Amino acid sequence: MEAAREVAPLVIVPLGSCEQHGRGMALQTDTVRAVELAKLVAERMAPRAVIAPETTVGLSEHHMGFPGTLTLSPQTLQQVIYEIVHSLHRHGWRKVFLLNGHGGNNAVVDIASIRIRADFPDMHLASSGISALVPDVISQEGVSELRGHSCEVETSQALYLAPELVRTESLVPGTHRRSDLDPAGRLSRMHPAIHFPQPYHRLDPNGALGDATVASAEFGERQVNAALDRLTSFLEQFIALPLPGTPSAPATPHSV
Amino acid sequence: MEAAREVAPLVIVPLGSCEQHGRGMALQTDTVRAVELAKLVAERMAPRAVIAPETTVGLSEHHMGFPGTLTLSPQTLQQVIYEIVHSLHRHGWRKVFLLNGHGGNNAVVDIASIRIRADFPDMHLASSGISALVPDVISQEGVSELRGHSCEVETSQALYLAPELVRTESLVPGTHRRSDLDPAGRLSRMHPAIHFPQPYHRLDPNGALGDATVASAEFGERQVNAALDRLTSFLEQFIALPLPGTPSAPATPHSV
Amino acid sequence: MEAAREVAPLVIVPLGSCEQHGRGMALQTDTVRAVELAKLVAERMAPRAVIAPETTVGLSEHHMGFPGTLTLSPQTLQQVIYEIVHSLHRHGWRKVFLLNGHGGNNAVVDIASIRIRADFPDMHLASSGISALVPDVISQEGVSELRGHSCEVETSQALYLAPELVRTESLVPGTHRRSDLDPAGRLSRMHPAIHFPQPYHRLDPNGALGDATVASAEFGERQVNAALDRLTSFLEQFIALPLPGTPSAPATPHSV
Amino acid sequence: MEAAREVAPLVIVPLGSCEQHGRGMALQTDTVRAVELAKLVAERMAPRAVIAPETTVGLSEHHMGFPGTLTLSPQTLQQVIYEIVHSLHRHGWRKVFLLNGHGGNNAVVDIASIRIRADFPDMHLASSGISALVPDVISQEGVSELRGHSCEVETSQALYLAPELVRTESLVPGTHRRSDLDPAGRLSRMHPAIHFPQPYHRLDPNGALGDATVASAEFGERQVNAALDRLTSFLEQFIALPLPGTPSAPATPHSV
Amino acid sequence: MEAAREVAPLVIVPLGSCEQHGRGMALQTDTVRAVELAKLVAERMAPRAVIAPETTVGLSEHHMGFPGTLTLSPQTLQQVIYEIVHSLHRHGWRKVFLLNGHGGNNAVVDIASIRIRADFPDMHLASSGISALVPDVISQEGVSELRGHSCEVETSQALYLAPELVRTESLVPGTHRRSDLDPAGRLSRMHPAIHFPQPYHRLDPNGALGDATVASAEFGERQVNAALDRLTSFLEQFIALPLPGTPSAPATPHSV
Amino acid sequence: MEAAREVAPLVIVPLGSCEQHGRGMALQTDTVRAVELAKLVAERMAPRAVIAPETTVGLSEHHMGFPGTLTLSPQTLQQVIYEIVHSLHRHGWRKVFLLNGHGGNNAVVDIASIRIRADFPDMHLASSGISALVPDVISQEGVSELRGHSCEVETSQALYLAPELVRTESLVPGTHRRSDLDPAGRLSRMHPAIHFPQPYHRLDPNGALGDATVASAEFGERQVNAALDRLTSFLEQFIALPLPGTPSAPATPHSV
Repeated sequence: MEAAREVAPLVIVPLGSCEQHGRGMALQTDTVRAVELAKLVAERMAPRAVIAPETTVGLSEHHMGFPGTLTLSPQTLQQVIYEIVHSLHRHGWRKVFLLNGHGGNNAVVDIASIRIRADFPDMHLASSGISALVPDVISQEGVSELRGHSCEVETSQALYLAPELVRTESLVPGTHRRSDLDPAGRLSRMHPAIHFPQPYHRLDPNGALGDATVASAEFGERQVNAALDRLTSFLEQFIALPLPGTPSAPATPHSV
Repeated sequence: MEAAREVAPLVIVPLGSCEQHGRGMALQTDTVRAVELAKLVAERMAPRAVIAPETTVGLSEHHMGFPGTLTLSPQTLQQVIYEIVHSLHRHGWRKVFLLNGHGGNNAVVDIASIRIRADFPDMHLASSGISALVPDVISQEGVSELRGHSCEVETSQALYLAPELVRTESLVPGTHRRSDLDPAGRLSRMHPAIHFPQPYHRLDPNGALGDATVASAEFGERQVNAALDRLTSFLEQFIALPLPGTPSAPATPHSV
Repeated sequence: MEAAREVAPLVIVPLGSCEQHGRGMALQTDTVRAVELAKLVAERMAPRAVIAPETTVGLSEHHMGFPGTLTLSPQTLQQVIYEIVHSLHRHGWRKVFLLNGHGGNNAVVDIASIRIRADFPDMHLASSGISALVPDVISQEGVSELRGHSCEVETSQALYLAPELVRTESLVPGTHRRSDLDPAGRLSRMHPAIHFPQPYHRLDPNGALGDATVASAEFGERQVNAALDRLTSFLEQFIALPLPGTPSAPATPHSV
Repeated sequence: MEAAREVAPLVIVPLGSCEQHGRGMALQTDTVRAVELAKLVAERMAPRAVIAPETTVGLSEHHMGFPGTLTLSPQTLQQVIYEIVHSLHRHGWRKVFLLNGHGGNNAVVDIASIRIRADFPDMHLASSGISALVPDVISQEGVSELRGHSCEVETSQALYLAPELVRTESLVPGTHRRSDLDPAGRLSRMHPAIHFPQPYHRLDPNGALGDATVASAEFGERQVNAALDRLTSFLEQFIALPLPGTPSAPATPHSV
Repeated sequence: MEAAREVAPLVIVPLGSCEQHGRGMALQTDTVRAVELAKLVAERMAPRAVIAPETTVGLSEHHMGFPGTLTLSPQTLQQVIYEIVHSLHRHGWRKVFLLNGHGGNNAVVDIASIRIRADFPDMHLASSGISALVPDVISQEGVSELRGHSCEVETSQALYLAPELVRTESLVPGTHRRSDLDPAGRLSRMHPAIHFPQPYHRLDPNGALGDATVASAEFGERQVNAALDRLTSFLEQFIALPLPGTPSAPATPHSV
Repeated sequence: MEAAREVAPLVIVPLGSCEQHGRGMALQTDTVRAVELAKLVAERMAPRAVIAPETTVGLSEHHMGFPGTLTLSPQTLQQVIYEIVHSLHRHGWRKVFLLNGHGGNNAVVDIASIRIRADFPDMHLASSGISALVPDVISQEGVSELRGHSCEVETSQALYLAPELVRTESLVPGTHRRSDLDPAGRLSRMHPAIHFPQPYHRLDPNGALGDATVASAEFGERQVNAALDRLTSFLEQFIALPLPGTPSAPATPHSV
């Protein structure tokens, strides 16, 4: 295993969710997208990367209006991520990448990462989502005004990465125009820097934002390939980075 | 006080930090900016808004390389925000806005908000930062390639909102070109969706990113006025929103 | 989904681990055995049972001497189980069965169950391991004096349920005679009611107790079929049970 | 005290409960049985063992249907055990034995022990219950089909160890045939490896399982003497064990 | 038991410690003093009071310089007290008195009480120490300038309440003049409102403050009888109090 | 900043509250009194003391009957204090004084201090309230029989330290005679050593105990000056104290 660490100094941890994905996609869509993308990344980085077990339940409180969704509390999900990385650290890994398939996990990933960096300062830890890696690829496509969950973007990724997640015949358009939202929903979309998220059962009767019926495996492939290029470009440099040393005291004083 | 709640149904909670702000700004810069902006917002909304006590220490682990910085753990800061809002809820307030002066608090604010929304579903809670409200105003100004802490953006806000925070004669340019960063620093700026933050004492010897020496009260005023317009526009509609009812079960089934 | 609950009132939650399994079995052996057995159970109970996402990391502190093993703390694993069942309860499920593929999780499963029963007294919750269901089938086979991890029992289950978990050519006998243990190891096996567990790297250089080289898919099949019979016999009656009512006060006083 | 540690390197920690014991036994029955047995063990080991203060409240949620029962949460009881042993460790003791008088504490004892072993790897910690030490002595006696709480086994131990715990004239037979249980109760006894415990007020109107009216001090003496023999035989070897060293890395790699 | 609650509406919970008491008193001195005083109180209040199991380990961090002392963390001790009272509340008791034998527990008792009052507003909860009840009786006696632990006051109580706690021949005077303290010790006694406690091994080589050699059972009896009078006078009125109703909103508004 | 630590080795942390102060004083009265007194202390100690950011919300559960009051839980307030001092410790400060403006924080301050002393034994930490420093000055004044919140004592301090806190024309006498209390209120004042606190809305319709209408800035000045003298006298010696060394094992054994 010490040998394994030498050969594969990078660990990718896929983070998923178990949550409603509208009428036509599986509860485990986020988990599977993260795992499948992780495999593609690991292939490109082979043999220098291994994949840790995926987390199968995320932070999905805003989807709990739909049965089948499961959610961990933010604190518990933080601990799960923290303790997985802690275990890897105990075995000597020092380069870990969290590949997050579910946007709802973002703040938890950030906080777990802050705690990990504070407690294990000799390690490099980075993270990303999937769709956020390729906003340019997405906007080129002419997507819906409103989108973000079980939409054409995510459904296309699923169709390319794991088509068994999608029951195409069941797909229906979700709410995809701001004008179709109720007042709180519209206000929640007023300014990207003002956070006022609404539970999904208030946004769409089927829990989808965007139009999954226009999804295609080809659009998914374009997204995935671009994401893969950007991730591997980052990870090549990430693997090459020297480990952070002990924090050195700053040279210059500051006013209290 | 019931009367107070009738007259002032909105509570603004300013969230600050106690952290290094380079050689020329005070440790309490974030707190004071949030409090001063809250006062301006409350003035515009008068008499419909009151201001709760500000939090004076935030999540500043990444600034702890500089003495004088204090930090709470993410979990403790979450609890502080949660319990302040819980107290307000016990007294009957149902519209609360968290005005966050410190970007480092963002993930904590998100998670506290998720927990509050889950536990007090009859309340409307929203939040924002300051600079993030006005990216267009900032980019018009021709700011540094790298910026984000004790830079011309933040220093200008301070010069306008509370000039006593700034010792102009001590200001020096911080790191403001990507090429001046070390390899980890450069990698941390490679793609906005890949999170790989570095502690500030690795980014700049004085803990600043951007060039505070080109700050001006006038630039601060333009930022603040635009932020104020956008916040009050949001808050007018926020106050007018009906309270969320009991979550109703969705009408349509989903696949497990 | 309400329809789903009507049709499938029983949820099976597979509980796994990510831990070393000697030289010839995969880290995810416990998880996969639990998931595969859950599928067989759900098939027999179809359409009355659904399977929740599996937990992929368990309590494996005693295997942390071997790199690749990951462990959650007992408290975190408890919370994960608690919150999964809580989510199911929020959606209306009242019959949940925890199918635990890893003996090291046992105490955590018991405690999570005690808390769940206390907090959700209108629910029926039960749990079991796998090998513990068929001690008679196992002892008929003439197994090693010492066994219990990556032994002929577990390896046979894996060969039957998911042969891809096993690299047969790498299997070597683990420590399988008490006399081969060191003094603490021997003492740990002195009396079944005296708990004095030893970390696995002190018990065997490859982390196995028992002789995996004599495993066979046929022995695995005999175990699995017996386990399946016993589980489904229990679950038929479990599904048929009326839900527990509000606890009624006992009729007779007791001495303080 | 260093002297005390030299003379008495073993500490016995008795773990009790405060819970209903049917109509004829005291709430503190488990605590007193553990303390009295600890005294007998310490006598046999004299002067090499000391007894720590007993815990007087355990995990008794399943008995809370009967007033007078007190219960700690699993997490709190874990912490109490953990912190008692931690205190002993800080003073230099390295051999600790938890003598548990209450079966309901078992999972908590296991988890506290796992945490203690992980955090204090230079210590030897072991534990046991009482009745579980002598199943052969018990089954020789021809006891009830159902038993396990305030039954002839436990009452006999009390009559021998501390007869003031028992009001013989108040003893009545508890539920002692499976056929007298309700359906959930019967199902809970279907297979020893399937955990489906029921609260005691659903099992018997007086909270007893088994027939205390056939208890005798003589049967208690036989049990206690056998338990004593087995415990002291274990503890002699336990005291003689060298302390565990720093965990050495295993020699052979494992597959991820 | 409902009957018991009718007859005995008051529960007394004795709170103890396991900590060094100088050269001549037992580790369990605080616990036994609290239990014995509780018995005397319950006798006077008979049959209206019952005694709950005592806590046997308290908050004794400041005595951990002396082997044999055990300590719980403040949070754990709080939880133990909270959960004992919670259990009593679940059974219907509404008048609980915490009788605290160890001054080091005071802040924990206060905080547990605050939490209990907030969570169970229909209950009356009160608490006291022992020596603090009779400062006048103590000062009449002409005691040492410095005292407070294993001193003539506490030793006299022990000699009266449970003489087996004291090995009279081993008693030696502890530090009993301020001038014998080191500078930090002297400063810790400068002003009663300035808290600057020092660990006991810095105050006295044997851990005692005061002169136990002048203790007497007679002085103990005077203290105990006065404490008993004051406690029972309070408890008579405490039992007679109506239960607190739902908190009514105050009639008059206050400024924010 | 290392320079700052050399020049200013003492940090004062003001602790406040946000709670009702009767009809005529501001919610932030405790915070402001603590901050203003801290400034006066720091002036006298200049340049050897710096002031950390104040905590603005305290433990005020007993005032929650009055809207506008905010409260943290005891555990959260403990953590805030703990983490502020921990941050200071990380930067090298070893002399910290907690100046507490709110009596309701006392037990929390004590417990946070106990934890800090245990975890950072190389630091000196002390604390005090304000009014408790000058009981003699207060009793000379002929104050009300009942007092303690928004009374002449506190209002006078406010009038001297920060007169903007007081709306003199709104002041009304609070409950100031024991005979005006209800039975629980009277019982809560029976003996100073018996703790039976009542929520303030049960003690006075305006939440005040004592008579604020007789307050004066002059009485406030006398209190503040005396408090200042006593604090600075303590702090001079506190600064001069050598740091505590590693706890040395005590020389003499004690009985278990």
